[in-house]
Amino acid sequence: MKHFFSVNNVPDVNALVKRAFELKKEPLKYNHLGKGKSILLIFLNPSLRTRLSTQKAAFNLGLNVSIMDIGKEGWKLEFEDGVVMDSDKAEHIKDAARVMGNYFDIVGIRSFAELKDSELDYAEKTINQFIEYSGVPVVNMESATLHPLQSLTDCITIEEFKTKERPKVVLSWAPHPKALPQAVANSFVQWMTSSDFDLTITHPEGYELDERFTQGVKIEYNQEKAFDNADFIYAKNWSSFNDYGQILSQNPAWMIDAKKMQLTDNARFMHCLPIRRNVIASDEVLDSENSIIIQQAANREYAAQAVLKTILDSM
Amino acid sequence: MKHFFSVNNVPDVNALVKRAFELKKEPLKYNHLGKGKSILLIFLNPSLRTRLSTQKAAFNLGLNVSIMDIGKEGWKLEFEDGVVMDSDKAEHIKDAARVMGNYFDIVGIRSFAELKDSELDYAEKTINQFIEYSGVPVVNMESATLHPLQSLTDCITIEEFKTKERPKVVLSWAPHPKALPQAVANSFVQWMTSSDFDLTITHPEGYELDERFTQGVKIEYNQEKAFDNADFIYAKNWSSFNDYGQILSQNPAWMIDAKKMQLTDNARFMHCLPIRRNVIASDEVLDSENSIIIQQAANREYAAQAVLKTILDSM
Amino acid sequence: MKHFFSVNNVPDVNALVKRAFELKKEPLKYNHLGKGKSILLIFLNPSLRTRLSTQKAAFNLGLNVSIMDIGKEGWKLEFEDGVVMDSDKAEHIKDAARVMGNYFDIVGIRSFAELKDSELDYAEKTINQFIEYSGVPVVNMESATLHPLQSLTDCITIEEFKTKERPKVVLSWAPHPKALPQAVANSFVQWMTSSDFDLTITHPEGYELDERFTQGVKIEYNQEKAFDNADFIYAKNWSSFNDYGQILSQNPAWMIDAKKMQLTDNARFMHCLPIRRNVIASDEVLDSENSIIIQQAANREYAAQAVLKTILDSM
Repeated sequence: MKHFFSVNNVPDVNALVKRAFELKKEPLKYNHLGKGKSILLIFLNPSLRTRLSTQKAAFNLGLNVSIMDIGKEGWKLEFEDGVVMDSDKAEHIKDAARVMGNYFDIVGIRSFAELKDSELDYAEKTINQFIEYSGVPVVNMESATLHPLQSLTDCITIEEFKTKERPKVVLSWAPHPKALPQAVANSFVQWMTSSDFDLTITHPEGYELDERFTQGVKIEYNQEKAFDNADFIYAKNWSSFNDYGQILSQNPAWMIDAKKMQLTDNARFMHCLPIRRNVIASDEVLDSENSIIIQQAANREYAAQAVLKTILDSM
Repeated sequence: MKHFFSVNNVPDVNALVKRAFELKKEPLKYNHLGKGKSILLIFLNPSLRTRLSTQKAAFNLGLNVSIMDIGKEGWKLEFEDGVVMDSDKAEHIKDAARVMGNYFDIVGIRSFAELKDSELDYAEKTINQFIEYSGVPVVNMESATLHPLQSLTDCITIEEFKTKERPKVVLSWAPHPKALPQAVANSFVQWMTSSDFDLTITHPEGYELDERFTQGVKIEYNQEKAFDNADFIYAKNWSSFNDYGQILSQNPAWMIDAKKMQLTDNARFMHCLPIRRNVIASDEVLDSENSIIIQQAANREYAAQAVLKTILDSM
Repeated sequence: MKHFFSVNNVPDVNALVKRAFELKKEPLKYNHLGKGKSILLIFLNPSLRTRLSTQKAAFNLGLNVSIMDIGKEGWKLEFEDGVVMDSDKAEHIKDAARVMGNYFDIVGIRSFAELKDSELDYAEKTINQFIEYSGVPVVNMESATLHPLQSLTDCITIEEFKTKERPKVVLSWAPHPKALPQAVANSFVQWMTSSDFDLTITHPEGYELDERFTQGVKIEYNQEKAFDNADFIYAKNWSSFNDYGQILSQNPAWMIDAKKMQLTDNARFMHCLPIRRNVIASDEVLDSENSIIIQQAANREYAAQAVLKTILDSM
């Protein structure tokens, strides 16, 4: 594995999940693997779990860590080719990425969707230019349309808590006051199908994800029906893909509450966090025994570490 | 000692001061104590000395250090329970704190008073929620009403420079253009009385600190009288506790100048810094032989290190 | 060498360049030199290469690194003496610098020109106060009028790519939408003349640099003539020194394109980056075989490391 852009870079998802469990047991076992090597984590957008868990994973592997909030500590980057750069963008990404790749052994990058133009966002220009120009392994710390470190965490967590060989996993849309990217949902679908879990997606009409991700996956527009017999409920808001970036509904009836959880087969509740309490899901659900949101977030450390270790191994 | 929230967590102040002196002599002696462990320093407010000295203390102990300016690099946190989170606050502190506690072995937090509602500030909700939810030792890097790392430093510094067994220490209010929290003053009183120094507080009427801190402590409204025979003058501004958060006076006559210092018994001058020169105290005082503000600030490193070492020892 | 403020602190430029080449071959050879020591990098202005390459150089030497964006994470500093500090500036630089020097073994500082008052900028008050007060070695990470880490990099890069004993180096002004400091140009001239390269400067009339730097250096107002037979073209914009801080020209005819490069003796193209493509130089030039802007930026790591190693050696 050179880059970690999506599940497609992972030859064997189950092996990567297994590696994460090994690291969770002995996080410092490979503390000398990163010695003398350095990773740069670049943030174009806010982050809490990704920022901290990736740092911690790098510490566990003995890597030096540099962090750059590029828009605040540096300047705006130009992403278009051939432009006369006389505006507010002081440096072209191709120059910035090449330079960064000279200083660091691995580069992680977070860059959200703008939610204005789906073709632009789905072209994944920012991270792809880092992959093209930096010359070093690039780790997706949430790009415009994918969040594979989160999805690997989700696989680990379902594996950890499942009580059936092939549990029923439901990805449920839930309301949110702001328009959010589809990245977590897209990526979750991609990894769930690669891991061969029994996936159902439920959302109001108009919230269909890009078909390139959902082909062959069950979609159930009735949330209550979808919850029937579920083993895991994965809540997440996203904005419309078809009416790109639009909020079509803020219907509070889609919030996940205790009553809905009773329709499931004693399902575990998951969310990638940050979660807006009593909007996405009720306090009662989030603070219940069945909520595994904190255990899930804790697994981010080992997901990141499994990815970084795999990259270091193949250097 | 699990948490370091206030002097009440410290079983023996003198022993902690002694430990700081030992570390000052050999800062790297316990460099392997923190190996493989990590500390997170969370800032909700600006910081210079605390930020740098706590990092340095952690380096001395071999800890990995992550820093997060949470409002800028992350997002706003919700502190109220049961709220429908549809405003600008993207994550509840209880979730954020739990997640952070999963990644890090120790968490330090700075969060100032809002100075709007004394009950709210004095409830110390922010740091208390970190203590309640993070599951790991929490270090107070200045909370709404206390700044114990500063006060421990002050104990160390007075111990270092005192020439009498029980020196007379005067905490003197001084003017300032902005409304400041009472945290440094409250905490100073708490630690001075725990250390059994001879403390006098002087301030204009209306600037009385919360009685829970000052019970039994001499208050002298005449600054010149207070300075008589003093061995240490500790200058600090704070806003009114009774007229909560208000500036009642900016009277420049309360500035500490060389003439006032002559009333003392050749007293040392202290301040926690940052200090507004020629507002709190004159250049002449600050640049005099008797000023120990830099030595005091330098001791912040060993105060933080003594606290972190004590926490690491009891893990 | 105690401080690294300008070329004048360097007893032997060639020896420093040689040291950089040795470090480039074996960057981790002196990884134990910085063990137990810490460097603080202070930024009053944005930075990408300096920020990352200096961190990396410090990692290579085993130093602990703290970074402080002082205006954002701390507060505004007062630089004038004797002021009544009742404005928005919360701390005097002399106090801040003294405190920082107590925590760290080396301090790096970036602080740009304000471009309002040439005497003020050329007095280099900010970095000079750090040198005066911090009590530890201070590294210039670009000051108001000088950028010696960049210039050392430029010496290294010319040495690496030169094919003649004494190549002809042309510093060419080029247009830019914003008023920029003269620091890179001043410093480049200073180091080129110390290294005895054959330097020509070309710029529109009115863009003469401060004569204290250019005395005895060829100035050719005709850019095409200047390029004749050149071995290295070093492009850079700066604002006027005489009409201090003013933009006198944005004439696109001064942009460096492929046609102009043909006037040279197959010259290498250099720039300190960030570069505005198709404003300073055309894509065709920047993406040509002769462009060495990335190799040049990569050398920043070894320039910084050579400086830090020299400072550590003399501690």
